[in-house]
Amino acid sequence: MHIDELDTPHLLVDLDGLEDNLDRYQSYFSAHGIGLRPHIKTHKCLAIAHMQMSRGAMGITCQKLGEAEVMVAGGVDRDVLIPFNIIGRAKLERLVALTKRTRLTVAADSAVTIAGLSAATAAAGVTVGVIIELGRGGRCGVETPELAGELAALVDSLPGLELRGVMIMPAPPQIRPFLQECLAQFDARGLPYPMVSGGSTPAAFTAHEIPELTEFRAGEYPVGGMKHLQLGTHTVEQCAVRVLMTCVSRPTAARAIFDGGSKSLSAATFADDERGSLMGHVVEFPEARFSGASEEHGQVDVSRCEPQPQIGDRVQVIPVHPCPTFNEHDIIAAVRGDLVEAFWPVHARGAIR
Amino acid sequence: MHIDELDTPHLLVDLDGLEDNLDRYQSYFSAHGIGLRPHIKTHKCLAIAHMQMSRGAMGITCQKLGEAEVMVAGGVDRDVLIPFNIIGRAKLERLVALTKRTRLTVAADSAVTIAGLSAATAAAGVTVGVIIELGRGGRCGVETPELAGELAALVDSLPGLELRGVMIMPAPPQIRPFLQECLAQFDARGLPYPMVSGGSTPAAFTAHEIPELTEFRAGEYPVGGMKHLQLGTHTVEQCAVRVLMTCVSRPTAARAIFDGGSKSLSAATFADDERGSLMGHVVEFPEARFSGASEEHGQVDVSRCEPQPQIGDRVQVIPVHPCPTFNEHDIIAAVRGDLVEAFWPVHARGAIR
Repeated sequence: MHIDELDTPHLLVDLDGLEDNLDRYQSYFSAHGIGLRPHIKTHKCLAIAHMQMSRGAMGITCQKLGEAEVMVAGGVDRDVLIPFNIIGRAKLERLVALTKRTRLTVAADSAVTIAGLSAATAAAGVTVGVIIELGRGGRCGVETPELAGELAALVDSLPGLELRGVMIMPAPPQIRPFLQECLAQFDARGLPYPMVSGGSTPAAFTAHEIPELTEFRAGEYPVGGMKHLQLGTHTVEQCAVRVLMTCVSRPTAARAIFDGGSKSLSAATFADDERGSLMGHVVEFPEARFSGASEEHGQVDVSRCEPQPQIGDRVQVIPVHPCPTFNEHDIIAAVRGDLVEAFWPVHARGAIR
Repeated sequence: MHIDELDTPHLLVDLDGLEDNLDRYQSYFSAHGIGLRPHIKTHKCLAIAHMQMSRGAMGITCQKLGEAEVMVAGGVDRDVLIPFNIIGRAKLERLVALTKRTRLTVAADSAVTIAGLSAATAAAGVTVGVIIELGRGGRCGVETPELAGELAALVDSLPGLELRGVMIMPAPPQIRPFLQECLAQFDARGLPYPMVSGGSTPAAFTAHEIPELTEFRAGEYPVGGMKHLQLGTHTVEQCAVRVLMTCVSRPTAARAIFDGGSKSLSAATFADDERGSLMGHVVEFPEARFSGASEEHGQVDVSRCEPQPQIGDRVQVIPVHPCPTFNEHDIIAAVRGDLVEAFWPVHARGAIR
């Protein structure tokens, strides 16, 4: 099937770009002896997760239990990390069941979370791995080395739990002193840390500057996005996720309307120093400014384009943030050149619980 | 089922608030003799669309053909407007089929769109209603009265098309002079305009100040959102769409992390003059500042809250923009007080084509 036969808007993954990214990131981590644990929350797709595993990934990261259930059921079941505080009876029952299907590790950053995990696993006679989430003002995570050590000791003391180490997000080289202070607290207590997990695609290629890391979580590297284009980690060709759109209106000489908006790209915006707030990069018209969108209308300033897109023209738009973009779609068209090689479900789309 | 039995994050619609909104907006439009044509792109749910129709709505608005197909198949098939330029063979084939199932009107703002519509419908021996989309710098729409008149004449001249009038979005009272100029162009050519359609929930209660309007499209009025809360059209109780979340981490005295982020609320943000960029309003902790989110983490500044949310606490968050929020979810829990009265599918979720 030719790409021109796809109706728009449609989510695309360019296979040449995808495979290039999978190879180069896996090569980097393999060369440095650091485990790569891809975060599947970006693509949410079994086909891509299996490609990652077959290239040497040590296991996967899933942000929610529901994502892990989808991946494990689909055969991506070697070793799963859920870097999230699992709280509440309904989720703990499912977590207990999941420990019987894969080697499972979860993160915790409070005694409340740890006590809940232990009560559920011990009562069921199973064990779950636990790592302490370290934080410095980002998402979750303990903010002091002392608390990290105390929580690690708590994990180590409770039934149904196996202390496996720590995680931190993001993990640029600057976090190393804090990480070392935290691990010193483990050492002082004689506690093990076989897992020291860093994360985030933008910091991936400096992972070797933190020798303590045993593994690295990266989500966006297979497909990139506008942020990666600006950072220079991905070329346009390596930004493998695109939304195929049609120009449906040209209200003025400066303005074009595409048939994809926030329901195709997500509502994420990117603050460009020169061009203001953007919602995507138009591959065929790099001078276009995709400045806004309602759900189904993409608003594009084409005043600097020469030539300009005309009604009926089809374009590929690189989204700002690939993770929510995938979550807007049920189906990925996997394309190579002009050919649709496969349609892949976004298997874990909407798995928010 | 008690609301406490729902796992989080979960999309809620409060039925008391919903019914209040449905009644008060329908009452306003009925009192003024203006047809209310709800835009179902907000909720995407057959159950709510049927509630709107049974209260007196004249028909519905669907932003995409796929949404219309879902609604018509579900019995919401009296009169459907798709205010979008339908372009391309695949969509035109479906449009022809849909004309046999409902009274259908579509919008157009170019000769390209109009020619495509006529070619498809005339070849199939069917007729579709067409209205000219008027615009003033927003989304699509012709920018001059002259062009509106010319396109209307083109519609009137072509087989397979029935000229039905005009639409404009948004439609505050300030657009009346432009609307009148456009209609004068119809009059000058002896062209009919049985439909003069305005739109947008924020401008709903001033629709009577534009006597030319025969009908009004409003999407968000059944559920509101942060914008409506600030505008004063909806109280907190009338903001019927909420995302139920759990506090899963308290990294610092100032910061709480909820288990819902952009995949529960959407990535939409709201620029509050005093509090900066916000992603939601926390009903139980109105002083909380929901300042950011990644996909599964809601980042909330709780420094002004007294008391503060603790790990395990459950909260209801009113989203910034209800339309993309519904699109993140497969299921709505329809609640009244503390009771879940029904689970409703978000039937047209993801119907982007």
